[in-house]
Amino acid sequence: MTRIAVVAGDGIGTEVVAEGLKVLDAVLPGVETEHYDLGAARYHRTGEVFPDSVRDELAGHDAILLGAVGDPTVPPGVLERGLLLKLRFDFDQFVNLRPSKLWPGTVGPLANIKPGEIDFVVVREGTEGLYAGAGGGLHRGTPAEIATEESLNTRHGVERVIRDAFTRATARPRRKVTMVHKTNVLTHAGGLWARTFADVAAEFPDVETEYQHVDAASMFLVTNPQRYDVIVTDNLFGDILTDIAAAVTGGIGLAASGCINPTRAYPSMFEPVHGSAPDIAGKGIADPVAAILSVALCLDHLGHPEAAARVEEAVAHELANRAPGQQIVTHEVGDRVAVALS
Amino acid sequence: MTRIAVVAGDGIGTEVVAEGLKVLDAVLPGVETEHYDLGAARYHRTGEVFPDSVRDELAGHDAILLGAVGDPTVPPGVLERGLLLKLRFDFDQFVNLRPSKLWPGTVGPLANIKPGEIDFVVVREGTEGLYAGAGGGLHRGTPAEIATEESLNTRHGVERVIRDAFTRATARPRRKVTMVHKTNVLTHAGGLWARTFADVAAEFPDVETEYQHVDAASMFLVTNPQRYDVIVTDNLFGDILTDIAAAVTGGIGLAASGCINPTRAYPSMFEPVHGSAPDIAGKGIADPVAAILSVALCLDHLGHPEAAARVEEAVAHELANRAPGQQIVTHEVGDRVAVALS
Ligand SMILES: CC(C)[C@H](C(=O)O)[C@@H](O)C(=O)O
Ligand SMILES: CC(C)[C@H](C(=O)O)[C@@H](O)C(=O)O
Repeated sequence: MTRIAVVAGDGIGTEVVAEGLKVLDAVLPGVETEHYDLGAARYHRTGEVFPDSVRDELAGHDAILLGAVGDPTVPPGVLERGLLLKLRFDFDQFVNLRPSKLWPGTVGPLANIKPGEIDFVVVREGTEGLYAGAGGGLHRGTPAEIATEESLNTRHGVERVIRDAFTRATARPRRKVTMVHKTNVLTHAGGLWARTFADVAAEFPDVETEYQHVDAASMFLVTNPQRYDVIVTDNLFGDILTDIAAAVTGGIGLAASGCINPTRAYPSMFEPVHGSAPDIAGKGIADPVAAILSVALCLDHLGHPEAAARVEEAVAHELANRAPGQQIVTHEVGDRVAVALS
Repeated sequence: MTRIAVVAGDGIGTEVVAEGLKVLDAVLPGVETEHYDLGAARYHRTGEVFPDSVRDELAGHDAILLGAVGDPTVPPGVLERGLLLKLRFDFDQFVNLRPSKLWPGTVGPLANIKPGEIDFVVVREGTEGLYAGAGGGLHRGTPAEIATEESLNTRHGVERVIRDAFTRATARPRRKVTMVHKTNVLTHAGGLWARTFADVAAEFPDVETEYQHVDAASMFLVTNPQRYDVIVTDNLFGDILTDIAAAVTGGIGLAASGCINPTRAYPSMFEPVHGSAPDIAGKGIADPVAAILSVALCLDHLGHPEAAARVEEAVAHELANRAPGQQIVTHEVGDRVAVALS
């Protein structure tokens, strides 16, 4: 029996996760789901962000479905560091997988790019870099104040995520991996990434490789996103690049992600790239497609690739039939996709 | 007598700087220019990157015009850290100013955005952050290898660049400053930036303010670049955001920048955002407009705003008259702009 922990979270998180679960139930009936109340609401009610007991319960599940956490009423970092990043780090989810596709029927912002022409995946490192939380400050609130942030990178962490990217590339028709970093400025971490990339590439002689600085890649994602197949990059660069990728493929409402621990020592977590969007929360107009596609990534990870493919097909059909500018009604999208699968 | 040091550098750097100087001579005859041979060629010939004696000579000039430095034959970081960033840091060029405009006649990659609709300026911090060069490594070449990069931020450095951004905003019709950072993850540096932003904003009650995370801003630069007026951000985020900005305004061939020390204690430096582009070097097909617009920024900084405006007008005319897809001939572009100014 597959057991999935659901952290719907805040704002539109709860709205889109409901549709994701509707679709999950249609395509793979009988999955056991357990809901965990975490996020801004619980924090305000109890002061708790992520009790150890909840962490231990989550650890016992096969996967986690997350909606979105965060709210402007909570100080920046409290839920991000205390809950979302703690999940990624505690469960060693070192592959933050973010596929980017310009789906037929989707109107992207780029002229001259047709649906089908953009189809790449970003393998973002998920457990190191500037997200380690290393940093500090002195003399706060005075003219002498300083603050630091430290990017921590290990051969262990860099090698495993690069190897994952190459492995994924061998299963794709184009077999190309682009590493993105900033080796000309961040020479220490960049050197480690570059040498590790070269070493791992040698194990995959039939995969084409290239390297780009993060500034150049950010530009090419806009001017020539067709060129990418698999991008592998560090945690912060991956955060930025995947939002550009979401922008050029029709917006954050469609971008799914998986925080994956390929060793399966801990559960992997699946979540839309978008946040809790307090501005549209409660209106029932958030696009649940990103959450539904995150369910597809989850199914694939749990060993149900056919179910995952069926969800993707149903989403493709939904998107292909949207009228330009059509107003989204969250639960109707979920209904249509679920019905197509029943 | 105005004295400008010219560091043409490598690749297309020399080609585009020649056109910049042609235009400078047309609009403000009699400026004294002195050429300094720095970059990959000198490094290969002599092993020298940036001798102290040259640094001292450059310090005596009113401004520096730089083309581009770098070549794949030089290890990453050697010229960037040893020359380009050393100039920015030694001469305390804390305002890295990068205007973004979709010029009439320019075809950008975004559908639905018309020339004139994008017009903002990024004030990128130029002397701190991850560019400080703080970092290191251990156990190189072994499975135990680690590497770090440290972002160093001071109230001094953050406050002066934010104040510069607000001052620039008061001189613009929209009077809006957007701060971009990642306060939800980089809580130490982000906290310093956020508190300083609030403090400085209080001095400018008639300037509108907003804050965005760097990932969101990277998305909005693609989906809604019209919303920006002045963006202020840290060194690395500014590097990335300005390349996205260049992409959406027709490419890196048009993007100018100034590394400015507003105190005038040291010379400021003006350079196209693009690099040495070894792939097209020597062919005479690089677009010199970014270098020419950098000359305009230089003229403005040196107290010749009318000359700067005339150069911008001549460039606007050049761009408005380009046929779509027209092949650039570097020296012809310089000739046309210079003739328009004589
Ligand atoms: C909310 C935030 C901590 C998170 C990140 O920076 O990773 C988000 O932007 C994402 O991309 O999942
Ligand atoms: C060449 C490199 C060091 C430089 C930077 O990162 O600042 C460049 O990308 C720029 O934007 O001027």
